Amino acid sequence: MKCTILTVGTEILFGSIVNTNAVFLSKKLNELGIDVMYHMTVGDNTKRLREVLAHAYEDCDLIITTGGLGPTQDDLTKETIADFFGVRNLMNEAELKKLSDWFAAAGRHMAENNRKQAMFPEGAVILNNPNGTAPGFYLEKDGRSIACLPGPPFEMQPMFTNELAPILSTHSDGFLYYKMIRTSGIGESDLETALLPLINGQTDPTFATYASKHECSLRVASKRRTREEAEAAVEDAMKEVRKLVGKYIYSEDGEDISQVVLHRMLNGHITLSCCESVTGGSFAKTVTDMPGISAIFDRGIVTYSNEAKMSELGVKAETLDAYGAVSEQTAYEMAEGLWKVSGSDVCVSVTGLAGPDGDGSATPVGQVYIGVCYKGETKVFSHFFRRNNREFIRSGAVQWMFRDIYSILLI
Amino acid sequence: MKCTILTVGTEILFGSIVNTNAVFLSKKLNELGIDVMYHMTVGDNTKRLREVLAHAYEDCDLIITTGGLGPTQDDLTKETIADFFGVRNLMNEAELKKLSDWFAAAGRHMAENNRKQAMFPEGAVILNNPNGTAPGFYLEKDGRSIACLPGPPFEMQPMFTNELAPILSTHSDGFLYYKMIRTSGIGESDLETALLPLINGQTDPTFATYASKHECSLRVASKRRTREEAEAAVEDAMKEVRKLVGKYIYSEDGEDISQVVLHRMLNGHITLSCCESVTGGSFAKTVTDMPGISAIFDRGIVTYSNEAKMSELGVKAETLDAYGAVSEQTAYEMAEGLWKVSGSDVCVSVTGLAGPDGDGSATPVGQVYIGVCYKGETKVFSHFFRRNNREFIRSGAVQWMFRDIYSILLI
Repeated sequence: MKCTILTVGTEILFGSIVNTNAVFLSKKLNELGIDVMYHMTVGDNTKRLREVLAHAYEDCDLIITTGGLGPTQDDLTKETIADFFGVRNLMNEAELKKLSDWFAAAGRHMAENNRKQAMFPEGAVILNNPNGTAPGFYLEKDGRSIACLPGPPFEMQPMFTNELAPILSTHSDGFLYYKMIRTSGIGESDLETALLPLINGQTDPTFATYASKHECSLRVASKRRTREEAEAAVEDAMKEVRKLVGKYIYSEDGEDISQVVLHRMLNGHITLSCCESVTGGSFAKTVTDMPGISAIFDRGIVTYSNEAKMSELGVKAETLDAYGAVSEQTAYEMAEGLWKVSGSDVCVSVTGLAGPDGDGSATPVGQVYIGVCYKGETKVFSHFFRRNNREFIRSGAVQWMFRDIYSILLI
Repeated sequence: MKCTILTVGTEILFGSIVNTNAVFLSKKLNELGIDVMYHMTVGDNTKRLREVLAHAYEDCDLIITTGGLGPTQDDLTKETIADFFGVRNLMNEAELKKLSDWFAAAGRHMAENNRKQAMFPEGAVILNNPNGTAPGFYLEKDGRSIACLPGPPFEMQPMFTNELAPILSTHSDGFLYYKMIRTSGIGESDLETALLPLINGQTDPTFATYASKHECSLRVASKRRTREEAEAAVEDAMKEVRKLVGKYIYSEDGEDISQVVLHRMLNGHITLSCCESVTGGSFAKTVTDMPGISAIFDRGIVTYSNEAKMSELGVKAETLDAYGAVSEQTAYEMAEGLWKVSGSDVCVSVTGLAGPDGDGSATPVGQVYIGVCYKGETKVFSHFFRRNNREFIRSGAVQWMFRDIYSILLI
């Protein structure tokens, strides 16, 4: 089954929002064995929406739209689709009642223009929306299927999972299984070159390399009749992959380095605290993204000022004077000081220069020091980022904090 | 001038990466007065890439592609485009030399497959890439233009800004000016209803409302011959907008609430510290996203455990026992304790339950308490999020921390 994901909304063409809906739907559809052939985005414009619908209708069995189901005048997806498929758009009294009940329960005023959210193309299956005022729908006609979902991700995602996926799973013509392999220490072209014996001449499983900001990934995918067959094909291929590039692999199930490290620490009941300067809380934020992490995460301290470094962590004034805030010595004293305060098994510190401007010393923008104190023993790692880009340096520093902890815990 | 943004890459159709390139390019092209009509994404597949090129070629004067300029076998954008436009793809010796020099300087091995990155369609202008191995190019033929940029954002963005934008700006047929108005306290349909007198019958300026996760925005845009004319048209419209919905507006230049608050604090030299439980460093991370914030940001403390709340902030054991970690009283003592430790003008605290599971007490998931201590005077705000969604509650709590500070600083 071939699918086009069609995102409707002028705000996307203005660059005002990121199209995360296409990401979510692509992942889920691929897992259902449905091939995503195109992503397309058009504005809130009937003529161009029709044109793109026509293109998708020709090439694909299934079209999934998001957006344009809202109450406002420029929300016209439903009307355009009914017209394109040659069916009427009818008021559904039961949905109208639900809608007014929803507003009453939320204590909000129901505007007149909300009424059209209870209208649907004739013959459509209504997809419930417990998280908002726009129900979706699914329509089959003349061998083509179309599903319309609302734009806001927190409405669209549960609707897809609970309402649409069960319908689509009965239409799927196969099962896709894949492994996302994470590597560190090898560039994309070298990774592909190393895997050429596998890649050349293979059609299934397929191998694809991805360069992301601070590392390379490899996707090994197979689409077969059943999940078991696809899984076996990927597992077979993985034996060869491990022979060729095993030493660069740190994760075979798509977990990034933060998840690998935190799961290992959760399993081993290894407690963690952190103190951050340059990353300003990003490391702690990443840690606490994980539900249940309070079992091992004690505290994080963002010591942005020198005063905070001294009073919170006991960094010595002489150290800051002699070596500066961005130095191996400061990173060392931060990690050790945090250990004295928190007693956590792993205490990680970071100090660095994210730019855009330097700190007046000889230390270049991009220099980062990471201290890891493991059960009272402290080691400092030095990293240098060649790109003067604040976001790049900060996110890279967080990634290296996890990698440095990883290297210590493996010992 | 009408444009299609064409993103090439199977990884996008798999949902492995977010298409931020389309966001960046859309913003920049709109600012140049170029209308973005479509976003399209296809996989690394010659046939479908040609089909989409044909669709874009028919409707638009300009096509901008990203991706598929890499060294690997599935990078085929350049070859397909040369073929589609009926020109040859030629080796450029000067670019080949630059490429091998780049590898030498980076101390990396140049694989044989990198050589094709120095080939370009005949007649193309080469767009330099100081950040990677894939130069881009710009080609004009038969009244159509196409520009090909690399996929990685940190290569694509500077190439667009420094190499392509100067070329495109000479082709633009007008100037777009817009204001992004941020509101709080009004829903999207009520916002549109309030603005209907303006929206009805207007073609320029245009008005569009956007519902984002925790608030609504309004975009007022005008496209005129010059920047001055567009700006004047938007300013005229803004007078009416302010009359109709002024009391909900907190920003007229697209700054979100964190930027509004932090700029105000920077200008007034008001110092800031924070202590976070439920948000786990997200607030500190947001603060330190802003360059130069070290002038007023002293420290952030992530007190995830009860021990940390007591030892770092002096929260009383009796308070935690009697009211729990997620309580008005704990939020109060956290903010006040932080003030005693840091002496910052504004000390903000947050404690709450982000789920997915509760903490065993009667406190429901979604309950958040925020304490703001301003020059020693503490006030606690209670917020409840009806949706059990960890990410939603955490990001909402951060937004409310800024709003609560805003409400206090306005007094």
